[in-house]
Amino acid sequence: MPNAVVLLSGGMDSATTLAIARSRGFDCLALSFSYGQRHALELDAARRVAERFGARQETVAIDLRAVGGSALTADLPVPKDRPLRELGGDIPITYVPARNTIFLSFALAWAEVTDARDIFLGVNALDYSGYPDCRPDYIAAFERLANLGTRAGAEGKRFTVHTPLIALTKREIVAAGLELGVDYGMTVSCYDPAPGPLACGHCDACLLRLRAFAELGTPDPAAYR
Amino acid sequence: MPNAVVLLSGGMDSATTLAIARSRGFDCLALSFSYGQRHALELDAARRVAERFGARQETVAIDLRAVGGSALTADLPVPKDRPLRELGGDIPITYVPARNTIFLSFALAWAEVTDARDIFLGVNALDYSGYPDCRPDYIAAFERLANLGTRAGAEGKRFTVHTPLIALTKREIVAAGLELGVDYGMTVSCYDPAPGPLACGHCDACLLRLRAFAELGTPDPAAYR
Repeated sequence: MPNAVVLLSGGMDSATTLAIARSRGFDCLALSFSYGQRHALELDAARRVAERFGARQETVAIDLRAVGGSALTADLPVPKDRPLRELGGDIPITYVPARNTIFLSFALAWAEVTDARDIFLGVNALDYSGYPDCRPDYIAAFERLANLGTRAGAEGKRFTVHTPLIALTKREIVAAGLELGVDYGMTVSCYDPAPGPLACGHCDACLLRLRAFAELGTPDPAAYR
Repeated sequence: MPNAVVLLSGGMDSATTLAIARSRGFDCLALSFSYGQRHALELDAARRVAERFGARQETVAIDLRAVGGSALTADLPVPKDRPLRELGGDIPITYVPARNTIFLSFALAWAEVTDARDIFLGVNALDYSGYPDCRPDYIAAFERLANLGTRAGAEGKRFTVHTPLIALTKREIVAAGLELGVDYGMTVSCYDPAPGPLACGHCDACLLRLRAFAELGTPDPAAYR
């Protein structure tokens, strides 16, 4: 089986992406980041999900709190109960400066040393909450960079960044994951579960997730406050 | 003065780049990386050089030893006494997978939160030892990525990655730096100064540096074994 690197946050989208990468026949290295996010629950979730799908897992420690500039890495409030129709408009305060670029750069380094040509990233451009680093032209620009800036690229091997969720709604993502055996009870989507382990049910991530399960008529196995 | 982020390793090229950024009127944040390199001497050098040029300095800790794949981050021998005419041919074992992509990604995050539009990187495509992530088309690809993947880019602000050394020979770099007051005795270029603080004089970086000073007819103030 060819190797692939899968960015795995422990949320709904990246868990589904790992399941898709496995279903396409890749031997997966799941890469997670301890970056100073508000809670480590998602890292535990990432480990469980990786184990469930037989993937090796690495957690990379980087300090994005030193950079700050986001409600996910600084002491800024996470927006709650925003109308769903507003999501996807402005870039929200939960945007972390250059986060996907940093994550993809590490994925590229790992891909190069494990002789993987394929990187999987669970970004989503429909219900994407307005993040600029989740759009198809951004992904294409990273692929180009990867092929120009690496030994593997210089030797004529081509990197591909797969974004199997990019054109799916959250509802379609959950439906695809359920079909592939994803246990969404293992995943953590909430931006703000502190102080306990329960999801808040009110941040953008919780609202999008709850709507997806409601539309499918399936209960969300996550535990909410 | 506008803000800029300058990647500063503590070597000859990045010190010269910081001097150039200052001479162009930028208020500089010097960004260095403790990435698991073979020696921390260059980080001390980076701090001295930043102080000399009145730049704020941040050292970002990331673990590229976990990735490996290079003589600079794994227990692989550093090549010695390679004929200078061979440099720039094959990509050498001192290439660190995706290193400049990772470094530029962090620079981009810092640029975004400090409202800087300008990033300076001391890469050099003439005497460049064959690294793929030092070429003009790679730099252009990163600029494109930066403008697509950030809040600032989405708001119409343009990032520029300045590479003032890219078309210079090492001799021209040293000449430019001396004119701007760089004290090259503060800088560390050697890939392999272990066990002591003295430069080996035989790795690619030492050979290129020594040739540059010899061509200029100026003594290299670095201390060699």
